[in-house]
Amino acid sequence: MDASHEWQPSGLVTWTTDFGLENGFVGTMRGVLLARAPQATWVDLTHGIPAQALDVAAIELRSALPYFAPGSLHVVVVDPGVGTERRVLCGVHGGQCVLGPDNGILPAVLGPGAGYFVLPEAPWTLSSPSRTFHGRDVFAPLAAALLTGELRPAEEEPCADPVRLDASSPVPEGSGRHSLRVQLVDRFGNLVTNWQVAENGVPAPGSHVRSGAMEIPLLATYGEVARGACVALVNSWGYLEIAVRDGNASRKLGLERGDPVQLQEPQ
Amino acid sequence: MDASHEWQPSGLVTWTTDFGLENGFVGTMRGVLLARAPQATWVDLTHGIPAQALDVAAIELRSALPYFAPGSLHVVVVDPGVGTERRVLCGVHGGQCVLGPDNGILPAVLGPGAGYFVLPEAPWTLSSPSRTFHGRDVFAPLAAALLTGELRPAEEEPCADPVRLDASSPVPEGSGRHSLRVQLVDRFGNLVTNWQVAENGVPAPGSHVRSGAMEIPLLATYGEVARGACVALVNSWGYLEIAVRDGNASRKLGLERGDPVQLQEPQ
Amino acid sequence: MDASHEWQPSGLVTWTTDFGLENGFVGTMRGVLLARAPQATWVDLTHGIPAQALDVAAIELRSALPYFAPGSLHVVVVDPGVGTERRVLCGVHGGQCVLGPDNGILPAVLGPGAGYFVLPEAPWTLSSPSRTFHGRDVFAPLAAALLTGELRPAEEEPCADPVRLDASSPVPEGSGRHSLRVQLVDRFGNLVTNWQVAENGVPAPGSHVRSGAMEIPLLATYGEVARGACVALVNSWGYLEIAVRDGNASRKLGLERGDPVQLQEPQ
Repeated sequence: MDASHEWQPSGLVTWTTDFGLENGFVGTMRGVLLARAPQATWVDLTHGIPAQALDVAAIELRSALPYFAPGSLHVVVVDPGVGTERRVLCGVHGGQCVLGPDNGILPAVLGPGAGYFVLPEAPWTLSSPSRTFHGRDVFAPLAAALLTGELRPAEEEPCADPVRLDASSPVPEGSGRHSLRVQLVDRFGNLVTNWQVAENGVPAPGSHVRSGAMEIPLLATYGEVARGACVALVNSWGYLEIAVRDGNASRKLGLERGDPVQLQEPQ
Repeated sequence: MDASHEWQPSGLVTWTTDFGLENGFVGTMRGVLLARAPQATWVDLTHGIPAQALDVAAIELRSALPYFAPGSLHVVVVDPGVGTERRVLCGVHGGQCVLGPDNGILPAVLGPGAGYFVLPEAPWTLSSPSRTFHGRDVFAPLAAALLTGELRPAEEEPCADPVRLDASSPVPEGSGRHSLRVQLVDRFGNLVTNWQVAENGVPAPGSHVRSGAMEIPLLATYGEVARGACVALVNSWGYLEIAVRDGNASRKLGLERGDPVQLQEPQ
Repeated sequence: MDASHEWQPSGLVTWTTDFGLENGFVGTMRGVLLARAPQATWVDLTHGIPAQALDVAAIELRSALPYFAPGSLHVVVVDPGVGTERRVLCGVHGGQCVLGPDNGILPAVLGPGAGYFVLPEAPWTLSSPSRTFHGRDVFAPLAAALLTGELRPAEEEPCADPVRLDASSPVPEGSGRHSLRVQLVDRFGNLVTNWQVAENGVPAPGSHVRSGAMEIPLLATYGEVARGACVALVNSWGYLEIAVRDGNASRKLGLERGDPVQLQEPQ
């Protein structure tokens, strides 16, 4: 077996969902997990993914993954297909394991070189699972079985064709111009675009971002512009981001997730 | 003693409150608990109960309880009567223990057959408890004493007359028609009614739910209707629920917690 | 060394930030910490501090601190100066340790008599720290080093001149009148003023609070006024607060954080 597809559980498990914290959904999943794996360390990555936003879940988990120790398990349940036929997969790469429905998030998180395995629901899942809450009935019990070592990814059926998300990549338009999209608006109103330094490189010095008639300079930090002014920068996750110093870029520019912006590199 | 009123603490404690997460209320209660029971496993069920909504707290905790291992302690602090005279109770049933003010939530969570005990505040509660934050000053220290075994429910004064919530039950109106209410709107905008399968049975096939002029078919899953269409179904907690596939039923139908809907069973 | 500046880590660490829970910021910091200090007990005090509101962070943490056992570490990352030059400090007092940027919060939390130490970033912080997310790259690794005892505050450079917040104190205006400000609006819409009993004393019986033409009586509990009526009281943290029984004072009075109110003591 490919050594990079080996995974030994450390006991730590993170959760990324669109379930929110207003209801008992997350606490109930935790009850299921802890009843089966009482020693597990539970970490909420976020439950604030916009409903059914597969691409946002992928960005959040991909950004966080490198900061967790090897042996971690990451469960991501953003699952528009709940109740229909779809496989349950885990993906392993670099000592990390990601568990979720086969809906494209796993490859977007793990990148090239990961190994995928189809997990059996029996005998792990709750008897008579509901058709609407697989986080509780399917994923929490499977996570427990992975954490305790009763279920080992490498002993399950390999999967060569996981579903893949349509990547939303920057589109070059010639003359140093690229068409981007806002992928995620964070709590501060910062606009995270789909320009990722690891794939697209660092934009050339002197670049700016355009939104309508607005030209926003690419700089190194918020502090280089006046309070209330717009700035483009490479954020701490390696994405090109538009921010307003001490302000909210989404509100100031009227931009939301999915909206287009342009990157102009000097010629 | 009734064997079903025995409870041995496992060390796990869940919390259900209307305190939100915007302030330090929850973290402070955790400080009080961990100072007295450092080995406890703390689980937030939810702190998003609408302010003073006893019935919502009861639904959330009742739905979650069966998923926790025996030996769990569940604290529920939704407490419009804080600062006035009211007893502090714990209720025990089926290996689970629920702690809270005597305001009707405990019987609604535990159902028939539970045993109730009046807990003494001394010597457990903080000295000079405030009159507005008993979560911190009364319930966190009592929870710690229960978790460590210093306080044993069965050794305290039995309570035969816990306060009971006015149940909001479906009202039969003849000709297969029932008057229901929306009890809870979840994060996705799904409308959870007060028709509970365990008490009211599964609605007959061919039933529908009416809201104003709208007739909503009872089906098995979201996936059986088109995107954006309404569907009624039995949700994963066993309640009749109105949903919109890939949408928000509360917004689409203009319905909130407390609003009436009708269930029509075929004749 | 001043014995009150000694601190032995218990392994418990609390976090107070303005990062929110909608994104993976908090979970990622936890990954960094647990990779270095796997036995740590992580407690979220709150991540709901309004963006960059240093004074609110100070109130929340100061109110919570006395409820944690000695040996606790408290990290507070509300950091408008991220990416610019500013020292990283920890402050020790009464067996508690607070870690954060040198921006005034620490002295406001710890009060007179605390000892401050400048912490070195090397060799603890992540290599190539970002200029926008020091919670992950600087504070989480430093917290881990403090929790494991690898980094000991008292062995680092003492700091005699920590930055101090401009205190927003009540201003006496003669004839028993004081000009106050709303410092914090909590989840329930209660208005917490800057009148703190520990510093300003208990307002005399018969006092009232004025907002515009409204006169609000100072009483002991919510329950002494009718539903929907306004009441001023000393809250469970020792601050003068304006509340509405079973209602939302912020909405009813149209008051927000920073707005002025008057306290009138009887002559």
